[in-house]
Amino acid sequence: MGCFNMMLNFRLVILVLAICGVRYRMGMVKAEELSLESVKGKVYTLDSVREALIRQEDTIVFGLIERAKFLMNSRTYGGEEIPGFAGSLAEFVVKNTEAVQAKVGRYNNPEENPFFPENLPPSLVPSYSFTQFLHPKAASININKSIWKIYFEELLPSFVASGDDGNYAQTAASDLSLLQAISRRIHYGKFVAEVKFRESAQQYESLIRSEDKEGLMKLLTFESVEETVRKRVEKKAMVFGQNVTLKNGDEKNVTYKVDPSVAANLYKNWIIPLTKDVQVEYLLHRLD
Amino acid sequence: MGCFNMMLNFRLVILVLAICGVRYRMGMVKAEELSLESVKGKVYTLDSVREALIRQEDTIVFGLIERAKFLMNSRTYGGEEIPGFAGSLAEFVVKNTEAVQAKVGRYNNPEENPFFPENLPPSLVPSYSFTQFLHPKAASININKSIWKIYFEELLPSFVASGDDGNYAQTAASDLSLLQAISRRIHYGKFVAEVKFRESAQQYESLIRSEDKEGLMKLLTFESVEETVRKRVEKKAMVFGQNVTLKNGDEKNVTYKVDPSVAANLYKNWIIPLTKDVQVEYLLHRLD
Repeated sequence: MGCFNMMLNFRLVILVLAICGVRYRMGMVKAEELSLESVKGKVYTLDSVREALIRQEDTIVFGLIERAKFLMNSRTYGGEEIPGFAGSLAEFVVKNTEAVQAKVGRYNNPEENPFFPENLPPSLVPSYSFTQFLHPKAASININKSIWKIYFEELLPSFVASGDDGNYAQTAASDLSLLQAISRRIHYGKFVAEVKFRESAQQYESLIRSEDKEGLMKLLTFESVEETVRKRVEKKAMVFGQNVTLKNGDEKNVTYKVDPSVAANLYKNWIIPLTKDVQVEYLLHRLD
Repeated sequence: MGCFNMMLNFRLVILVLAICGVRYRMGMVKAEELSLESVKGKVYTLDSVREALIRQEDTIVFGLIERAKFLMNSRTYGGEEIPGFAGSLAEFVVKNTEAVQAKVGRYNNPEENPFFPENLPPSLVPSYSFTQFLHPKAASININKSIWKIYFEELLPSFVASGDDGNYAQTAASDLSLLQAISRRIHYGKFVAEVKFRESAQQYESLIRSEDKEGLMKLLTFESVEETVRKRVEKKAMVFGQNVTLKNGDEKNVTYKVDPSVAANLYKNWIIPLTKDVQVEYLLHRLD
């Protein structure tokens, strides 16, 4: 499919985006107003990558709020609950649901990275031709093992109330959704890095050739941008986690379903640094 | 476990709720502040049922917003995409994910109703003793076939942009989450009906004995309450579906990820009437 199609599609996408303007980005376009059926392949630019990252914040905040609906339900994370399965109930749900989703092609999309890539069944459906934007080495970058550890050991205990409500399957399903959202966000670093690389290839090339991790990290770091992201995520947790009533006023005593600082700290301590790790890792292989 | 335990637990729950007050309901209680481990079994009251229904609105609105992230992806709903499976890709994902969740006990909770109850595998984990609050006939009430039809034929085309982005697995997974949230909300009618029945048993009994569906429907209907629910859901769609930025002001040109009227109409046309159907159906068997 490759480059030629991409070029054609690129013009088409620009045209459609121009016509639909901001309304497209807001997702407000109705079925009858726009058909993107003919636009195959996605275009990655600094702007589109930024938009995608911002949209993913909403998904992550929703995921935090939805997980907080259930108590800790530690039995979901113990071992040996399931006869014939060596792992926790959460592992069982994640592994088996990933297998179902793999069979219908989830991991054909280079934006997705499985938590259990070993023995993942192949896709059974005709494959969609996703834009090949990344260097082929990207496929081998998967830091979900670290994400898994942080999620269960540090993130969950920081915002979920202890106790047992018996909803282990629902708990594990909401863990999976949130894990997938966080993983997708962090591995989006590959696209961030590729876009930045294409913008200033020369600057990156010398650092890559000298394997200068620190230099790359410096070039990728914009503290004021990171601060803006943290603040926006905190605000999203306030907006999305409030108890909405029809009464106005009384905004002094608002409480939230998840402490907004949890969302901000998730970004500060894990998502932002891990995304940068993915970017550096990707760039180090960019000239392979 | 039965009645004796329930009575003991009831007192304990009241005590814990009194101590934790509103903070408990807001989900703001941190792990170290409260252990509910000893509190087994849930208490259903008019208030707790109302709180649950309000909380479920958030989940449904989040679900709409998350589904709208993807294009229609009609290939998810066509047939014969998967060799050896007679059904659509969405059916494949829902059926197989339900099977995974059934194995870890999702459907032991009387609040949950599967879309494909036929051949659902049994739970492999030790069962949690959920409060037995409903009449045993409740288990046979499942209107998911109607919900399925409405969801794919009417709801989806009303808010999802047409086109194909290739994310069929993710699309089906977000369909499943939203379907589960809507189904849970509608079948919560069983709990609503049981609570109302216990509050004024005499009034209901005569209508039930004369199988007076219309009379039951009248007794269950409070138009002003329904109007409040629709308005609140519409407001939630505005609050949760807005594009949150750090800038203030500029609130004139706010656009939403899902048209708020879609959420309000979902409640008006389907969720509220179907919940009442479930209530009437439940009550008709209440004295069996």
